[in-house]
Amino acid sequence: MKQETAAFVSELLAELSEFGHDGSGGVTRLLYSEAWQNAQAYLSNRMKEQGLNVRVDRVGNLYGRLEGSNRNAPVVLTGSHIDSVVSGGRYDGTYGIAAGLAALAYLKETYGEPLHTLELVSFCEEEGSRFPLAYWGSGNATGIYEWDSGEGVYDSDGISLRQAMEGAGFGRADLPDCRRSDIGAFVELHIEQGPVLEKQRKRLGIVDAIVGQRRYAVTVQGEANHAGTTPMNMRKDALLGVSEMIMQLEADAIICGEPLVATVGRIDCAPNTPNVIPGSVGFTVDIRHSEEQLLQQFSESILDKFKEIAKWRGLEVSISPWLEAKSAPMHQALTDRLERISQDLSLTCRRISSGAGHDAQLFTAICPTAMLFVPSKAGISHSPLEYTSPEELADGVSVLAAFLYELAYEGKLP
Amino acid sequence: MKQETAAFVSELLAELSEFGHDGSGGVTRLLYSEAWQNAQAYLSNRMKEQGLNVRVDRVGNLYGRLEGSNRNAPVVLTGSHIDSVVSGGRYDGTYGIAAGLAALAYLKETYGEPLHTLELVSFCEEEGSRFPLAYWGSGNATGIYEWDSGEGVYDSDGISLRQAMEGAGFGRADLPDCRRSDIGAFVELHIEQGPVLEKQRKRLGIVDAIVGQRRYAVTVQGEANHAGTTPMNMRKDALLGVSEMIMQLEADAIICGEPLVATVGRIDCAPNTPNVIPGSVGFTVDIRHSEEQLLQQFSESILDKFKEIAKWRGLEVSISPWLEAKSAPMHQALTDRLERISQDLSLTCRRISSGAGHDAQLFTAICPTAMLFVPSKAGISHSPLEYTSPEELADGVSVLAAFLYELAYEGKLP
Repeated sequence: MKQETAAFVSELLAELSEFGHDGSGGVTRLLYSEAWQNAQAYLSNRMKEQGLNVRVDRVGNLYGRLEGSNRNAPVVLTGSHIDSVVSGGRYDGTYGIAAGLAALAYLKETYGEPLHTLELVSFCEEEGSRFPLAYWGSGNATGIYEWDSGEGVYDSDGISLRQAMEGAGFGRADLPDCRRSDIGAFVELHIEQGPVLEKQRKRLGIVDAIVGQRRYAVTVQGEANHAGTTPMNMRKDALLGVSEMIMQLEADAIICGEPLVATVGRIDCAPNTPNVIPGSVGFTVDIRHSEEQLLQQFSESILDKFKEIAKWRGLEVSISPWLEAKSAPMHQALTDRLERISQDLSLTCRRISSGAGHDAQLFTAICPTAMLFVPSKAGISHSPLEYTSPEELADGVSVLAAFLYELAYEGKLP
Repeated sequence: MKQETAAFVSELLAELSEFGHDGSGGVTRLLYSEAWQNAQAYLSNRMKEQGLNVRVDRVGNLYGRLEGSNRNAPVVLTGSHIDSVVSGGRYDGTYGIAAGLAALAYLKETYGEPLHTLELVSFCEEEGSRFPLAYWGSGNATGIYEWDSGEGVYDSDGISLRQAMEGAGFGRADLPDCRRSDIGAFVELHIEQGPVLEKQRKRLGIVDAIVGQRRYAVTVQGEANHAGTTPMNMRKDALLGVSEMIMQLEADAIICGEPLVATVGRIDCAPNTPNVIPGSVGFTVDIRHSEEQLLQQFSESILDKFKEIAKWRGLEVSISPWLEAKSAPMHQALTDRLERISQDLSLTCRRISSGAGHDAQLFTAICPTAMLFVPSKAGISHSPLEYTSPEELADGVSVLAAFLYELAYEGKLP
């Protein structure tokens, strides 16, 4: 099966990458765009070819269904998202859908009708690249969003979410409801988007949790002054304060240890002129950890230290919480099972926290959920340079298929 | 005399601030602009009113001359510049001209014809605010520039220096040559542009040197990566490297002590996105000290430390020297004399390094040069908030007048 699967998945990813192919060599497939519509239509046909019953819901999530013999039993769902960032790669999201189609096709051909209904989903949106809102697809499926809850949300061209949704033929009350209450388990296969598996030469990452996240916008106010005429001891240099805060954040993050990560990704200095002492500097802090309590403690502690640094330096600091996402632990029994299957298939693996957000984290609220990573070359993602080899793609499908078999054919739902 | 002088100078500054008065409440009087032309024309009339012989040179420096009885004796020159930064204050530069006019008027009225010719100059340009070149006026007077050496220099609207100069009626070979070789002494009166005099409650600052300056553009290259999925120990975070460099610069500057000042005024981060580890950060370093050798040593040492920090962190660093201005010591005997005169007039004073550049530094190459500061409220300059009280303005004129008297009437040139 393996060579065939590798070819099937890489070819399907190559074909899908034509929808939204941009000048950069990357893929730009934003929610409800023409490229997005064409990709969903193409996927719909590919699902039908494999004998799946296809439907879309009110916001444009696409489902392919392999009916089980026990019509009342909970559904086993796999899949990921079809949208991309601007100039992204061909693997992020799309791989989970292509792998799911390969797995369902293999299971249907090999074992016929399952006990539990098996479904493959192509979520309409996860990235938050077009509208300032993410997980629109899985959020509607799990009840975090309602299909009409995107009021007042606009893209950078001033087009509203509602308008874009209707333009693509969705957002009508007569289309099927999005909310799923019939799911017995959800599993998502995804590229790692980080360097850990490659560096440690593991074929698979068994996700134990999707990390929780805190994001803050911090502004430090000092006094802009002449860089030549203001002695060092009469300065209130906002950039010096911020540099000290950034150093403190790094030191504390290293002391706290993995899987905590903390990043200042954005810094804006004013007036930002070589011969003027910075009067005001804004920056962002992004902190992630798989354990909610540690994440909260770390975040509170570092913000206190920022305030101390500011006070000591005679600076004003203001901190705005911007994003607070709780960590989402995966289902322990399912995670153990993924690990056992990997070992049975002689595929090296390790437990890993997902530092990035995924559709799977929304499903943890409504059903047992699991997640599986394959390596990303050089840890690159959200870039035309994303790459995972065909063999690695096929590894993921092997584990996914075996996992879905236990759930849907053997009926071993938790 | 004092009250009268205070009124004369503050009124003249108020009148001149109308030329280039902008919406911010500040003054924008860029080289060769209409506002600049009107200000020079107004000054020219005010000089004539005081019985001075007025002329302009080839680049637009305006001179008012009080002829001395000894026609062959070297000229005693005072003055400053008439141009401003964008949205600057009414004191920077202009004060030295208004004070000079007050001093010359007083001397002429009180003592009549001097021994040495006394001249007041309104230099056409010092700030470098319109064209990427500074000291255009004093540079032409002292031979650092030639009147036609501005080839290929354009303002932000694409207008060449030559074009702007001709548009204002200058830059013609038939106008008087700029280069002065007849100057026996130059003295410039200026606002401090820093907080030292005000904080230490001194009425006057006797400048011992205009500091030398080194400016560098530094770029640190790391690797942009996902802020969630890249463990702390697998990062090459350019902003962490730069923050450490900024901390090192501050620590070394404090250890070195006054009058050294070192500033990172500009920082630009890429991609500058909250959830991406900074891949590349550029910043500027501005270092100043009155002692050339110390300045050079400090600069070399800190750049070496930047390279060590980059190496340690696996980052690439590239450093471009951008500006190297040698320090300009003032003439010691003249500086001593300014101090003695201040004391004779019961005006508290202190020696001070000028951390900002001034026209005076160009004259140190061709004649004995001295410089005198009056306080700036809250150390503010290059801002509509610049302020020096009428009494403080008059203090400067008192010392300047006594100083010019010794030079031009008593003939005590060094």
